[in-house]
Amino acid sequence: MTTDFTATRDAFVLPEGVIYLDGNSLGPLPKAAAARVAQTVTAEWGQMLITGWNKAGWMDQPARVGDRIARLIGAEPGTVVLGDTLSIKVYQALASALEMNPGRKVILSDSGNFPSDLYMAEGLCRTLGPDYSLRVVEPEAVLDAIDDTVAVTMITEVDYRTGRRHDMTAITARAHEQGALTIWDLAHSAGALPVELAKVGADFAVGCTYKYLNSGPGGPAFIYVAPRHAETARPALSGWLGHESPFAFDLAYRPGRGIERMRVGTPPVLQLAALEAALDVWDQVDLADLRAASLSLTDQFIAGVEAACPELTLATPRDHDRRGSQVSFRHPQGYAIMQAMIARGVIGDFRAPDILRFGFTPLFIGAEDVANAVEILAEVMAKRLWDRPEYHARAKVT
Amino acid sequence: MTTDFTATRDAFVLPEGVIYLDGNSLGPLPKAAAARVAQTVTAEWGQMLITGWNKAGWMDQPARVGDRIARLIGAEPGTVVLGDTLSIKVYQALASALEMNPGRKVILSDSGNFPSDLYMAEGLCRTLGPDYSLRVVEPEAVLDAIDDTVAVTMITEVDYRTGRRHDMTAITARAHEQGALTIWDLAHSAGALPVELAKVGADFAVGCTYKYLNSGPGGPAFIYVAPRHAETARPALSGWLGHESPFAFDLAYRPGRGIERMRVGTPPVLQLAALEAALDVWDQVDLADLRAASLSLTDQFIAGVEAACPELTLATPRDHDRRGSQVSFRHPQGYAIMQAMIARGVIGDFRAPDILRFGFTPLFIGAEDVANAVEILAEVMAKRLWDRPEYHARAKVT
Repeated sequence: MTTDFTATRDAFVLPEGVIYLDGNSLGPLPKAAAARVAQTVTAEWGQMLITGWNKAGWMDQPARVGDRIARLIGAEPGTVVLGDTLSIKVYQALASALEMNPGRKVILSDSGNFPSDLYMAEGLCRTLGPDYSLRVVEPEAVLDAIDDTVAVTMITEVDYRTGRRHDMTAITARAHEQGALTIWDLAHSAGALPVELAKVGADFAVGCTYKYLNSGPGGPAFIYVAPRHAETARPALSGWLGHESPFAFDLAYRPGRGIERMRVGTPPVLQLAALEAALDVWDQVDLADLRAASLSLTDQFIAGVEAACPELTLATPRDHDRRGSQVSFRHPQGYAIMQAMIARGVIGDFRAPDILRFGFTPLFIGAEDVANAVEILAEVMAKRLWDRPEYHARAKVT
Repeated sequence: MTTDFTATRDAFVLPEGVIYLDGNSLGPLPKAAAARVAQTVTAEWGQMLITGWNKAGWMDQPARVGDRIARLIGAEPGTVVLGDTLSIKVYQALASALEMNPGRKVILSDSGNFPSDLYMAEGLCRTLGPDYSLRVVEPEAVLDAIDDTVAVTMITEVDYRTGRRHDMTAITARAHEQGALTIWDLAHSAGALPVELAKVGADFAVGCTYKYLNSGPGGPAFIYVAPRHAETARPALSGWLGHESPFAFDLAYRPGRGIERMRVGTPPVLQLAALEAALDVWDQVDLADLRAASLSLTDQFIAGVEAACPELTLATPRDHDRRGSQVSFRHPQGYAIMQAMIARGVIGDFRAPDILRFGFTPLFIGAEDVANAVEILAEVMAKRLWDRPEYHARAKVT
């Protein structure tokens, strides 16, 4: 398979005059998704009504879609299921891992993790009681901090701010050596770069679908459980669709078979329809091609910006192995600079306190877009366009 | 306000030849929802991309829609928020209540509760440790079972199988007398009958939107927290959108203001769009009119079926005060009878082991539909049409 990125680009709606470098936050609309969602609404919900659960396959959709995502993250068939939000899936993975490693009470994470993962861990520890704790170290200190007190590591592979990529193989190996389990958050990995969960030997993984996988705002999350844990993991959030026999309506909970037990409540059928259409684009993509194209784009952007904008400090590793599919620069006026960029059609985003973040998604971004984005950023910096008052007003979401 | 049920009926897509008595399981498609969802997909996601979070108001939508639902359940403005599934919202309410009543370790529920509520309570008790337990009594025994060991009652107002309605006022009063908190599951109440959470003095309530509120398959759930608890409740599932300042990306969790803390992750924007359109229909509805019409329809159905089908045993209370907006009959061949009904265009559903369940939603069901449904059921029973082999094959979801 060789990926034709002209074809994948043509599969998306990209508004006129926009260079969209924020697919790492919310992927653009796949053209096929609009029709697919409309069909789900009018032909399925509208005409099949309740019978859509069987006739339209809504009930099996979370696992069916899970298998399609499994291919993109190097997971075995039948190990991935969709539903809920990423935070909820983090909680299920954490609760399962802590119960499976009962002699230990420490969750290890790092300060580069997405805060919601830390908050969920904090909430779980609060519920479990004072013996349990979340230990947060600097990203560089993770490997050495894995000792025989750690029950589970909870690490996001690619840092949402800097794009720094952890060494999944080394951390997983070290965790297992020390008797710890591993949870990998793939929010900025799935669809961004090749992931090899089975090969690495990861225990649990979670991720979201509205970033690089382009499922639309509020698309459901996914969870992976390694086959060796599938029948022992207990998700804590034990909802009826994770029951062995949901429609028996038993009063007592019995965990469902394998990955099915990670389901909780009624799946979000409309969001899943958009996701299914978005995944059609991925059927044409070889992940090695994607990675090569992504590194070429991020290299080009780093070189271009460093040459043209000496005031900006690169926050993303230069080393390919340590880089996700985004490039971030630091500047004290990062917020206003990004506003000036957006006003000129280059959409990236800002992450407090000083990060300008640009996502490079080869499915719809090419070398010419990168060259144009560099030129616009260079102009914003050279002419201090960010100094205009209109770029300093804060919106609620940035 | 006097509700014009001809107008509300005209607001829905109702397939030709179908009498839909399953709006208590999945409401039909409001005509306006198809256009609203399409607009959210193409004009908002497609053209605004990431800026939709502000420009299209996606970020505020869970609380904005919550206020519209508040009116339908007698809740104060600013006390309801949308998101996740009902099971997740149950977990948050339970975890909050148990932490707020630290001297007590018992969750009281009844065997008529929807099993997922019981499963979630079981999962939470497992996580909290062996001191905590779920006590399940018969529905009729709830009031007397509330003693000074009970931390919180978790009761579904209307039984999903029989349509039996609990006395919310009496149970809430008794719980408070005994120092217990209350969680009301309104899955079969919201949009089915008037609910007066504030007046009753309920502490927490949860509910779903895809039944009587017609938000579509997998529509989000809602949670209510009484204003007096808004700043003390801790949801256990403490996600970033429940943080006081989500976009500060602090490493430590600080609960958001009031009901906002019950948010977890990224809201399902497409499902919320469908819900918003569905709620437009409710703007025209007076809940007292709805209740009167609902009781008239269920009375008519009970009388008609009892006259024509002596083999069926009524499972729903005759007393208006004890009845929701559905009617259920028992028969050992319930599954096959329902299949025969569905084959003749009357869609209700079956709940194991022997319940035939029919929902009556005056927004789109009238007296003529009830008369026709009775006639078809009478024919199925009189001619033993349910005895045909094709009605005995079991589908996965029934």
